[in-house]
Amino acid sequence: MTKIVADMSMSLDGFIAGPDDTPAQPFGSRNAEQLHNWLFSGRELHREGFLRPEGRNVQIVDAMYSSTGAFLCGRRLYDLVKGWNGSHPIRGLPVVVLTHAPPENVPSGNSSFTFCTQGLKKAVDTARAQAKGKDVMVHGANTTQQLLKEGLADELWLHIVPIILGEGRRLFERTANSIQLEVLETVETPQAIHLRYHVRR
Amino acid sequence: MTKIVADMSMSLDGFIAGPDDTPAQPFGSRNAEQLHNWLFSGRELHREGFLRPEGRNVQIVDAMYSSTGAFLCGRRLYDLVKGWNGSHPIRGLPVVVLTHAPPENVPSGNSSFTFCTQGLKKAVDTARAQAKGKDVMVHGANTTQQLLKEGLADELWLHIVPIILGEGRRLFERTANSIQLEVLETVETPQAIHLRYHVRR
Repeated sequence: MTKIVADMSMSLDGFIAGPDDTPAQPFGSRNAEQLHNWLFSGRELHREGFLRPEGRNVQIVDAMYSSTGAFLCGRRLYDLVKGWNGSHPIRGLPVVVLTHAPPENVPSGNSSFTFCTQGLKKAVDTARAQAKGKDVMVHGANTTQQLLKEGLADELWLHIVPIILGEGRRLFERTANSIQLEVLETVETPQAIHLRYHVRR
Repeated sequence: MTKIVADMSMSLDGFIAGPDDTPAQPFGSRNAEQLHNWLFSGRELHREGFLRPEGRNVQIVDAMYSSTGAFLCGRRLYDLVKGWNGSHPIRGLPVVVLTHAPPENVPSGNSSFTFCTQGLKKAVDTARAQAKGKDVMVHGANTTQQLLKEGLADELWLHIVPIILGEGRRLFERTANSIQLEVLETVETPQAIHLRYHVRR
């Protein structure tokens, strides 16, 4: 049974990127790269499309990605990381991008990209079909917010990094309704506390 | 060695109370009482000054309070809870209240209250002296923010409750500087994930 999983790294004060996140510094300023240290061991490796987690984080990453069959993200994230230069760090998995209009040029690499212009529900269905029974992993603050608002998320995986960033892009903006969660798993590492929640509907 | 410990319950999206927190509903609306369910088993018990945690939360609460020698909070929290009707739920421990002017009437009960008008640093020193070698536990969003900003916090204890509240009073507002933390302990319970952090200076 495919689950729709929103997955994000976040500072303890709720920021998923520093201020001024641009393609030149996709994590924003304030050394917000630290938010992804548990996953990547450095910026250059990330640029080359490599993962190199350490310690207990290795098992976390392995479990995450062995259960994932497709990715879904918004156009903002896609543009920020320049379409991963055509190759998403998890090689071979399809990527669905929710957008108003497809980009004119897509960098060629080893990932397949589908640009969905018919709204979030359709993008989720597209990614679900491409995941072939595995889970859909959703990235991006805006997409996560919409997913939760429309009741489309089954689980929420957060990686809480031990920093009070102080400024940047929030994962959770103020919303009209509360959402109840249920803790599924907590794993502590020095780089991040990994939390898995079931989203109640 | 006395540690200065900021201790707060928070929704996953960073709120420590719902909107419209007033003395009539000190946790605010949106059923934000749930933020304290791990600590109190219900509103009425809280009003009577009783603690009744359940399961693993019992040990968490016991450990927290056996290490605590004094409380420090701001005037806003003191007013919201009507000075705990004179008796803080942890009976017998002194309470230091940071304020611009002491209240005219203090409800009589079994807690001693000291109203400090000389700023946070002085209030911390006063609480430290009253803690007699145990820790000072600091409550309240504003006071916690000031404490972190002025570099006076040794540890940060957060109880992350499995709800996206959507609205209310944030623990972390945007700040000028980032602060590095170090994870000391993570304990998962169904009602809250209890996190202890060391605050780096």
